[in-house]
Amino acid sequence: MRSSIATVCISGSLGDKLTAIADAGFDGYELFELDLVTSRLSPEEVVSRSADLGLSIDLYQPFRDFEGVTSDTLALNLRRAEHKFALMNRLGIDTMLLCSNVGTATLPGDAVAIDQLGALAALAETNGVRIAYEALAWGKFVSTYDHAWDLVKQVDHPALGVCLDSFHILSRGSDLETIATIPGEKIFFCQLADAPLMNLDVLSWSRHYRLFPGEGSWDLADFVARIVHAGYQGPLSLEVFNDVFRQGDPWVTARDARRSLVVLEDAARAARLPAPAVVVSGAAPAPALLTGLPAVDASRGFSFIELQPGAGTAVDVALTQLGFTPRGRHQRKNAELWSQNEVHVIVNHDLAGVQPRVAALGFEVTDVQRASARAVALRSHLLPRDRATDEDVLDGILAPDGTEVYFSERDGEAPSWLGEFGPADPAEAPASAALPPTGITHVDHVALVQPWQRADEAVLFYQSILGLVVSDGLDLAGEAGLVRSRSLVTADRGIRLALNVTPLQPGATDVYPNHVALHTDDLVATVTALRARGARLLPIPQNYYDDLDARLDLGSEVITTLRAHEILFDRDERGDFLHVYTMPVGQFFCEIVQRTGDYDGYGAANAPVRLAAQRAEERQHHTD
Amino acid sequence: MRSSIATVCISGSLGDKLTAIADAGFDGYELFELDLVTSRLSPEEVVSRSADLGLSIDLYQPFRDFEGVTSDTLALNLRRAEHKFALMNRLGIDTMLLCSNVGTATLPGDAVAIDQLGALAALAETNGVRIAYEALAWGKFVSTYDHAWDLVKQVDHPALGVCLDSFHILSRGSDLETIATIPGEKIFFCQLADAPLMNLDVLSWSRHYRLFPGEGSWDLADFVARIVHAGYQGPLSLEVFNDVFRQGDPWVTARDARRSLVVLEDAARAARLPAPAVVVSGAAPAPALLTGLPAVDASRGFSFIELQPGAGTAVDVALTQLGFTPRGRHQRKNAELWSQNEVHVIVNHDLAGVQPRVAALGFEVTDVQRASARAVALRSHLLPRDRATDEDVLDGILAPDGTEVYFSERDGEAPSWLGEFGPADPAEAPASAALPPTGITHVDHVALVQPWQRADEAVLFYQSILGLVVSDGLDLAGEAGLVRSRSLVTADRGIRLALNVTPLQPGATDVYPNHVALHTDDLVATVTALRARGARLLPIPQNYYDDLDARLDLGSEVITTLRAHEILFDRDERGDFLHVYTMPVGQFFCEIVQRTGDYDGYGAANAPVRLAAQRAEERQHHTD
Repeated sequence: MRSSIATVCISGSLGDKLTAIADAGFDGYELFELDLVTSRLSPEEVVSRSADLGLSIDLYQPFRDFEGVTSDTLALNLRRAEHKFALMNRLGIDTMLLCSNVGTATLPGDAVAIDQLGALAALAETNGVRIAYEALAWGKFVSTYDHAWDLVKQVDHPALGVCLDSFHILSRGSDLETIATIPGEKIFFCQLADAPLMNLDVLSWSRHYRLFPGEGSWDLADFVARIVHAGYQGPLSLEVFNDVFRQGDPWVTARDARRSLVVLEDAARAARLPAPAVVVSGAAPAPALLTGLPAVDASRGFSFIELQPGAGTAVDVALTQLGFTPRGRHQRKNAELWSQNEVHVIVNHDLAGVQPRVAALGFEVTDVQRASARAVALRSHLLPRDRATDEDVLDGILAPDGTEVYFSERDGEAPSWLGEFGPADPAEAPASAALPPTGITHVDHVALVQPWQRADEAVLFYQSILGLVVSDGLDLAGEAGLVRSRSLVTADRGIRLALNVTPLQPGATDVYPNHVALHTDDLVATVTALRARGARLLPIPQNYYDDLDARLDLGSEVITTLRAHEILFDRDERGDFLHVYTMPVGQFFCEIVQRTGDYDGYGAANAPVRLAAQRAEERQHHTD
Repeated sequence: MRSSIATVCISGSLGDKLTAIADAGFDGYELFELDLVTSRLSPEEVVSRSADLGLSIDLYQPFRDFEGVTSDTLALNLRRAEHKFALMNRLGIDTMLLCSNVGTATLPGDAVAIDQLGALAALAETNGVRIAYEALAWGKFVSTYDHAWDLVKQVDHPALGVCLDSFHILSRGSDLETIATIPGEKIFFCQLADAPLMNLDVLSWSRHYRLFPGEGSWDLADFVARIVHAGYQGPLSLEVFNDVFRQGDPWVTARDARRSLVVLEDAARAARLPAPAVVVSGAAPAPALLTGLPAVDASRGFSFIELQPGAGTAVDVALTQLGFTPRGRHQRKNAELWSQNEVHVIVNHDLAGVQPRVAALGFEVTDVQRASARAVALRSHLLPRDRATDEDVLDGILAPDGTEVYFSERDGEAPSWLGEFGPADPAEAPASAALPPTGITHVDHVALVQPWQRADEAVLFYQSILGLVVSDGLDLAGEAGLVRSRSLVTADRGIRLALNVTPLQPGATDVYPNHVALHTDDLVATVTALRARGARLLPIPQNYYDDLDARLDLGSEVITTLRAHEILFDRDERGDFLHVYTMPVGQFFCEIVQRTGDYDGYGAANAPVRLAAQRAEERQHHTD
């Protein structure tokens, strides 16, 4: 279907907004009145600019506080409407959004509203335009879409239809069955916004916290499927008021918005509608209108972790202590592969940068080409990459947090890229070969720090590119502020990604570096081996074990063991979680975890302890 | 009364928090459990550190999820409590906060709760401590303070009393009359927090948006007066969970917190309680416990505006264009006074800095010494200032936004500091003397940009130092994000201050410089004179006047006049507001306004137009 977006969704001048909207691949836009009022562009210049950019102007919005008024006010309102219709004609816009009256309505009762909406429709028809009537969730007399539709039906004028906005409908928990009873040609417009579930007054919720589809909590695929099913053929248009997007880079926001619509169309196409209670509209389901996406299956998990080693040998030392051994050198690049059971770490010396950091994540998918085609359809650009003819096809894209994301396949038992690496240099065999194995089996999860202004975008990115689902979200109390965390997973938990949003302060991302969590089946043995190999683990305050003892009746032996090894402990109904942390190496650190039973979390209760301990180490380091 | 604060209110390690709390002048603190658990300090080290700092530890908090449980869970809970009592003995803390059960309560009915609270009280007594029971607003079976008090009364044990927390009581809109029926000695603790009025679920509201007294919307003076009246003699303690304070500088937050308690005590002392319905407690009103503050009367308005001129002569040019004339040179400083009617501007060349900016505001008070004493009592430091023996006493303090605030008196008709200025140099008589007067009469308001992380502190600062009241708050839509604005005024509107909080992005304060709004009785004449004097005013888009014409039926003549002079227009029920803006001079600009009738706003509806026009000028400037 045609895609559209309201100019109010993004920041910048009207000229910037239009360019960003066009660059993101939208077909058209809704012109938000204030964006025109504040612009130096004349209506005629807006028209020619839009034409140059290949954008249609799909809606003029909003017209407010019209119906349910006294006759004096009605006369003023019709005068106001006529001015706006003249302006719409200059702009070549055929549809105006009319919001149900919030501020000036004094006369209740449908009869007044029907009469006054009829007068407006007649005036619109005279001026060659039409009115899409929308029930605001906080409208004074009209606040539900079925009420708005009932009024439109009774007015029965060709220039009057409804606008269905997912926010106003879903925020009120309205029954969606009525949508099927609206003839498609009377649905003049469809506005889409997602939102987090909040128990906030609906006006503030609407004005500050809307999100693009897929970034919030609603089932918009079902919503869109119902509207298409009703026969609507207009554009799917985003109308998202969000404090963060309002101040972000308009190009980034517009691309994020476009991505959300692509995912939504795909999901709506796949959505199965329940058998409608009543179908008045004769229109058949029209999935043909909706565009699908190539599928991705990333359930096989992490294929590799690529590190930028920075200056010095800290990364090599850390990997050795963790029990990794060098397995091969890249045939053309200055990169080395370190492996241990199913964990592959690539140390890429071609990556410049003083600080060691996690530069890239490899994900194993069943079909790299399909995954890449999906990413491109989702408005990601494939990263340029040197490829020799015999080199594995390894497509990559850039995540909003700067991490590179690569897709790879499996070739029999081995990752298909393994052939890029020659044998390890025997001269480099580490002296640690004789040390006890650490027993690390696989990557449990990766935690990535997100810049606050791109956190919602990141959730949509990882969800849509890799087909992950959001499993939960929570706030962690750090010494320097709350860290918002959201976890994305595959159904079988082959991938777990924790996206952590840091507090809004300069340099905060330095305080919370990314981390890679590795699994072991016996953490006490692993910790013993790590220490034997010279690893230093994050010291845990004694007060923690006193509190743990008070909270959970684990028995003094268990407490003594945990305390001796400085292991953190968490328990839910399904199992236990034991974990320790290595000291940071530049911009990342490792966690070693042991899950028992079906424990499905990340030890969030211990996060404040970990964050405070890391800050204490930092302070000590600075005063050393 | 003794002052206290919960460690959870501020950021940093436990050690940092204690130092900041002591430096701010608190008498003691509530130890938040997680702050101890995450600390490397042993309980004994916490005790000695507190003693060194002169701080008492007034409360151990919180103990959760205790009552209303099965007997198995009760046994675990009593075990947990005993561990905590032992810890409290190590810490020398005699009172523990018990929150009503939220998570684990399964057995409703007061009988179970009374039985189990009794068991806890007995165990507490054995261990030499006592329990302050607090109803959380979202408690499962106990969520109101009168219910909690009823249970405590029925348990009737010396080791069990209530904790009254303003948040939990006021957020539920509970009737406060019951407070007077609680014997003072059964009020074991009093926790104070303010909050903005929000229609948000009470848990999120409580965890993220609490404010220090005076920064929110509640009448805490009445609340405290009632508690003191009931005979409570313990500390007044702040417990404020706020996402911004959690990440701020702990010293700044602690001083802000202390200031809020000083103001609150003063206000509580002055509060008049309604005659209580029932008074069970025999305690007499005890205002003697409450400390008062020296009064301030700033109703006489702005005394002067001090500008840092920066490099070049832009400020002199702008002042001349605005119709100001040089009136005198400071006798010792390199500063010049420019005046026009009641407006005095001091251009201080001793202030270094390349960019012109508003450096200081002078406020005329009835008694400088009393105003200064008040500021000092409010934990402000008087600015060091060179004073010659014949120089007027002009005390100043630094506001959170970096503006210097000075108090001055009046000496007959003239400001008392006027004598510091000698006559103007006749050689400097401006060539503009022959130009038409601009008719500027007085300062209408000053708008100061606030860094987002100090905005709540700034509201408290200006309110308490100058005795202003908050008149309203709103969000303005700028191109680069929403600007939150709050206005502070004196009752007679002699002072109007608009505090604008910019979006959370680096450098945002540069986009919205401070501004000074000057009043005229005839804006059209003033604009004509300004242009004749060579002033350039902010260009307003033509689209604005088309929209104004559509919105308000002002008649084509008025629209033509406004359009010709590029004057912005607003109207409310009480009057009209006309305004124009000068081009920025470095970090500030001027607004010229005309109020008619009793219009009491600031033309907020036009703010997006102004902000967009300023951004457009900036972009043009950058591309020029």
